[in-house]
Amino acid sequence: MKAFVVKAGSTSLTGLQLMTREKPSPGAGEILVQMKAVSLNFRDLMIPLGRYMGGPLAADAVALSDGTGEVVGLGEGVTRFKLGDRVAGTFFRNWIDGPPAAESRPGLGAGVDGVLAEYVAFHQNDAVGIPANLSYEEAATLPCAGVTAWNTLLVAGKAIRPGDTVLVLGTGGVSIMALQLARAAGARVIATSSSDEKLARAGKLGADTLINYKTTPEWQEAVLKATQGLGVDCVVEVGGLGTLSRSMASLAMGGKVCMIGFVAGPAGDANPQQVIRSGGNLHGIFVGNRAMFEQLNKAIEVNDIHPVIDRVFSFDESPAAYEYMQSQAHFGKIVIRF
Amino acid sequence: MKAFVVKAGSTSLTGLQLMTREKPSPGAGEILVQMKAVSLNFRDLMIPLGRYMGGPLAADAVALSDGTGEVVGLGEGVTRFKLGDRVAGTFFRNWIDGPPAAESRPGLGAGVDGVLAEYVAFHQNDAVGIPANLSYEEAATLPCAGVTAWNTLLVAGKAIRPGDTVLVLGTGGVSIMALQLARAAGARVIATSSSDEKLARAGKLGADTLINYKTTPEWQEAVLKATQGLGVDCVVEVGGLGTLSRSMASLAMGGKVCMIGFVAGPAGDANPQQVIRSGGNLHGIFVGNRAMFEQLNKAIEVNDIHPVIDRVFSFDESPAAYEYMQSQAHFGKIVIRF
Amino acid sequence: MKAFVVKAGSTSLTGLQLMTREKPSPGAGEILVQMKAVSLNFRDLMIPLGRYMGGPLAADAVALSDGTGEVVGLGEGVTRFKLGDRVAGTFFRNWIDGPPAAESRPGLGAGVDGVLAEYVAFHQNDAVGIPANLSYEEAATLPCAGVTAWNTLLVAGKAIRPGDTVLVLGTGGVSIMALQLARAAGARVIATSSSDEKLARAGKLGADTLINYKTTPEWQEAVLKATQGLGVDCVVEVGGLGTLSRSMASLAMGGKVCMIGFVAGPAGDANPQQVIRSGGNLHGIFVGNRAMFEQLNKAIEVNDIHPVIDRVFSFDESPAAYEYMQSQAHFGKIVIRF
Amino acid sequence: MKAFVVKAGSTSLTGLQLMTREKPSPGAGEILVQMKAVSLNFRDLMIPLGRYMGGPLAADAVALSDGTGEVVGLGEGVTRFKLGDRVAGTFFRNWIDGPPAAESRPGLGAGVDGVLAEYVAFHQNDAVGIPANLSYEEAATLPCAGVTAWNTLLVAGKAIRPGDTVLVLGTGGVSIMALQLARAAGARVIATSSSDEKLARAGKLGADTLINYKTTPEWQEAVLKATQGLGVDCVVEVGGLGTLSRSMASLAMGGKVCMIGFVAGPAGDANPQQVIRSGGNLHGIFVGNRAMFEQLNKAIEVNDIHPVIDRVFSFDESPAAYEYMQSQAHFGKIVIRF
Repeated sequence: MKAFVVKAGSTSLTGLQLMTREKPSPGAGEILVQMKAVSLNFRDLMIPLGRYMGGPLAADAVALSDGTGEVVGLGEGVTRFKLGDRVAGTFFRNWIDGPPAAESRPGLGAGVDGVLAEYVAFHQNDAVGIPANLSYEEAATLPCAGVTAWNTLLVAGKAIRPGDTVLVLGTGGVSIMALQLARAAGARVIATSSSDEKLARAGKLGADTLINYKTTPEWQEAVLKATQGLGVDCVVEVGGLGTLSRSMASLAMGGKVCMIGFVAGPAGDANPQQVIRSGGNLHGIFVGNRAMFEQLNKAIEVNDIHPVIDRVFSFDESPAAYEYMQSQAHFGKIVIRF
Repeated sequence: MKAFVVKAGSTSLTGLQLMTREKPSPGAGEILVQMKAVSLNFRDLMIPLGRYMGGPLAADAVALSDGTGEVVGLGEGVTRFKLGDRVAGTFFRNWIDGPPAAESRPGLGAGVDGVLAEYVAFHQNDAVGIPANLSYEEAATLPCAGVTAWNTLLVAGKAIRPGDTVLVLGTGGVSIMALQLARAAGARVIATSSSDEKLARAGKLGADTLINYKTTPEWQEAVLKATQGLGVDCVVEVGGLGTLSRSMASLAMGGKVCMIGFVAGPAGDANPQQVIRSGGNLHGIFVGNRAMFEQLNKAIEVNDIHPVIDRVFSFDESPAAYEYMQSQAHFGKIVIRF
Repeated sequence: MKAFVVKAGSTSLTGLQLMTREKPSPGAGEILVQMKAVSLNFRDLMIPLGRYMGGPLAADAVALSDGTGEVVGLGEGVTRFKLGDRVAGTFFRNWIDGPPAAESRPGLGAGVDGVLAEYVAFHQNDAVGIPANLSYEEAATLPCAGVTAWNTLLVAGKAIRPGDTVLVLGTGGVSIMALQLARAAGARVIATSSSDEKLARAGKLGADTLINYKTTPEWQEAVLKATQGLGVDCVVEVGGLGTLSRSMASLAMGGKVCMIGFVAGPAGDANPQQVIRSGGNLHGIFVGNRAMFEQLNKAIEVNDIHPVIDRVFSFDESPAAYEYMQSQAHFGKIVIRF
Repeated sequence: MKAFVVKAGSTSLTGLQLMTREKPSPGAGEILVQMKAVSLNFRDLMIPLGRYMGGPLAADAVALSDGTGEVVGLGEGVTRFKLGDRVAGTFFRNWIDGPPAAESRPGLGAGVDGVLAEYVAFHQNDAVGIPANLSYEEAATLPCAGVTAWNTLLVAGKAIRPGDTVLVLGTGGVSIMALQLARAAGARVIATSSSDEKLARAGKLGADTLINYKTTPEWQEAVLKATQGLGVDCVVEVGGLGTLSRSMASLAMGGKVCMIGFVAGPAGDANPQQVIRSGGNLHGIFVGNRAMFEQLNKAIEVNDIHPVIDRVFSFDESPAAYEYMQSQAHFGKIVIRF
């Protein structure tokens, strides 16, 4: 079968290479999935660039963590699925419920093979059925970005409630999914972007305060103004050290900043003690467990939420999908269809 | 000023009498409110009938707990409000936040004067501003029914999350408010009623499964069927012992039944041990605190929720409002306008 | 190998029979455990009497749910354990963390083979290492009684905190374990019993208020008096309908009654609506998950808690252990040693 | 009456001056308290040094936040207290329960008069009865240090449970109180200090792992080693940016760092994103509310905890108490007796 692999030691996108791998056969408790769609996350860009966590990969790994497909094979003792089921793999293996599980590290696509391959074998415990109202392409956006947004809003710290205010930074996959979920949960959403056109699209999805951080560099002041000086209950903090100080300054008494990523890069510093005065809190979000994924799927079905897909590439165009991610021109998710 | 008073020892609706009372003047920390609207709850019917809690009232009390009005006087040291503010009183006095407060009992209208009077003095700590998007009539439905629904869904036990399923019994004020709030919170709603016409109205408000308990007396089976045998995460249990066994049978593993009232009367019995097998839980809900009221108001504003008012009576028609409540013909709330 | 089996349809203790069964061999993911000790719970008495849940057993089952032993065999792919490890099986299979799992029912010893056998094969996910400070006999008391007590105090509803007051009914295995854990958690404990001698022993374990419910039949009044009228934060309710009304009357505002069993039998009734006034809540406790067991074990090690064993029988004396349980003479746990 | 006042603009300990002030008389809802004892916190040292929050004080303020005394006068409408009651004031005014309250800022002794005066008038809502088992001197340590420790362990983020591991940095008032409370709550405690003698005293209070950070500068490695590489569930982080990176490195998966102060000074930096990988969280702790204080008092009574007092000064020696605080020679709390 064909698969895109990030080569060991890769430090540029040329490290992503099309290869032939043996088609897996499902072991005991495993399902064989014919992949239908996958999606990209910012970390997937960092991996071939050699800038993810500990640096370049130590060993080759099939790329990407997030994918959906059809169950076409069943190993011995599989009870959770049957042939023909539409499923998604989980970002981490063997993290069913409860607090983070050390033994489930690393996530797919870094240290362990990912999903950018024609067939993937998952343990049945590491997969979930996908929402009935979503296509394979739409559901392929959920394992990392969707679960991350769910963990941020509903699990980490104090869960948001109807009437709370959520601040989403930028218009990448996690931020747009968080915007949609926050609205479905009855929260108010404030969004930032460097592009008025993207802000207008965020407004159509339900954000009621739109802040261009290029033209309003002190955007935390705009956030405070829009909340009568009270601040927001939750910040979906995907920027990293470059934005964290302003995120903390945007916080309501007892509010939370959920730190997800580092799109804005390592430059800048941020003193976490800034939240002592407001009794706020900072949460490190590293995707989430299978129980969160299953609850997310119920929320998506009940509220008929459709994840926003910016553009769909074909399997062969996978390298172009990475380049498009690098351009940061996207609004929502970048998907590859098999 | 004029006020309707429930007489000590009253055991019928004739115990509700129009009287003249001295207009209050606000003491230290108090606000004087010119009442604009009040609403009725089931307990307000029980009080003159002598069937509320410990039986007939021991002393006369101005009727009703839930009302809104305009601040027309300020006692010394008031900082939370200014003249002209649109406010509602809280059901209990001096219960700001946290768990139930013994010292705040009883609620307005039973043991202490209520709000069916032209002017009422509230301590500033026992009042909140009303949502900007609501009329006085709409906001008058919130202090008991709205806060009860909020406590039930979002505070007692495990808060509902988007994708959860909520079962509301009947179409009284708490149930319809819970339906609206549950939908705003992204939950799925199942509703029961003895009237297909009322069920159709519940459907228009967002309930997606409608069960006529007259034609489906084993309605808990319909609930299980509608949830693939899994049951619901929350039951808004306003029926009492007459419905509680079926409510518990409708429950998902780990789900909650919030016991609010006793509309279905004291007949029947219910063994709470029924929930041991499912690890479920039962919560006694007795309205809620001021913090819940304030959060409810934010939820109402952000989601532009409008409480459903069945019928509005004039102040002089107050006894007719009680009789209408007694007929159980209403869908949503019964309001009296001054 | 030898095993005690409860025969299908059994309605008396004669249904517990010594039989020869084939020694199991561990399948993929399984460990083979040479049993060292087991303990009895009240439900284990009910099973051969045909009074557990749905009535007599439909099929033969090896008896008892709670046992410890040494790992003497490893199936393919076992990573959690190695030969020689001291382990206990979990009461339910495949309930790792989070809310109750329907698919893990029934518990060992009823509908599925239990642990009163010389060798038992557990899936590695359904076993935990036992506390280093406990003997096999002591640790054999944990899978049901220990986890139930932990779930009651620390997981269901609001977790108890230092300074809270816990009421334990009687001196059976769960109650005494709850007493020990509550004291380790910094809570105050009130205990009831029909025996002054047992109360004295409860006092030595740290209960500071001791109530003989024979000589004080209105024991809820003694509870209220001992708490300045405030009531308790948590009731470990093992009595059932015969005691539940008094348990609810003993409750503080916002307190919880954890319903575990039915030792006092089905007689009596109890209106759960009793807790509406106090905003209390009732929880159905059905043992708990593996994560609770692991946390319990840490608590036992850190605080050097030793479960109270009333009496140890030999494997051959197993029927006598059941009869002793039936006499209700015990204080703490009844154990069988292999 | 006599009072020690920190002068506006003060930037050294000479700004603390003994003055004569008019004895207050209790207004409506207020109690007059004859002060018996007060205690010092690190922030009290920072205030006259002009290094607390926004810099030097803008206006004179009676010093110190934490004090106890006897009720010797009652304003109109006081219901919570009677003459002769032994009470403590709360650090913040008008923060009864729930999340941090903006309107209650600032705390006593900075921006508003504190308690280093012969008589202080408190609103009845801003005071609590003190534990029956404590002297005035002991109870004077609770309003800031005690409540901070309680908030850290039991309220912020996930409450600690028996068997959890808590890391306390140094041997100041908050750290020692946290050590005592954590042990009462059944947790294991690891303590650090630069003094072996202080470590030995921490060991006597129940800390089971003692790390000298002078001789073990990479103390986070010693913490990980002492926890089999798992890390701790809670860090009582009083050091500030100088220790925060090591604190985060000491954290278990899903654990919490509670940031309280900045004893180690502003030097150093710390990247809060460090906790993304472990799903950890950081909480800003700014004392706590009255409900926490009341629960703390119950915990102290039930477990007969006695706060550790290092040294007691007389009222006239107040400046010497400040100098002693500055020397950092203390273990536990520094108290002034009237």
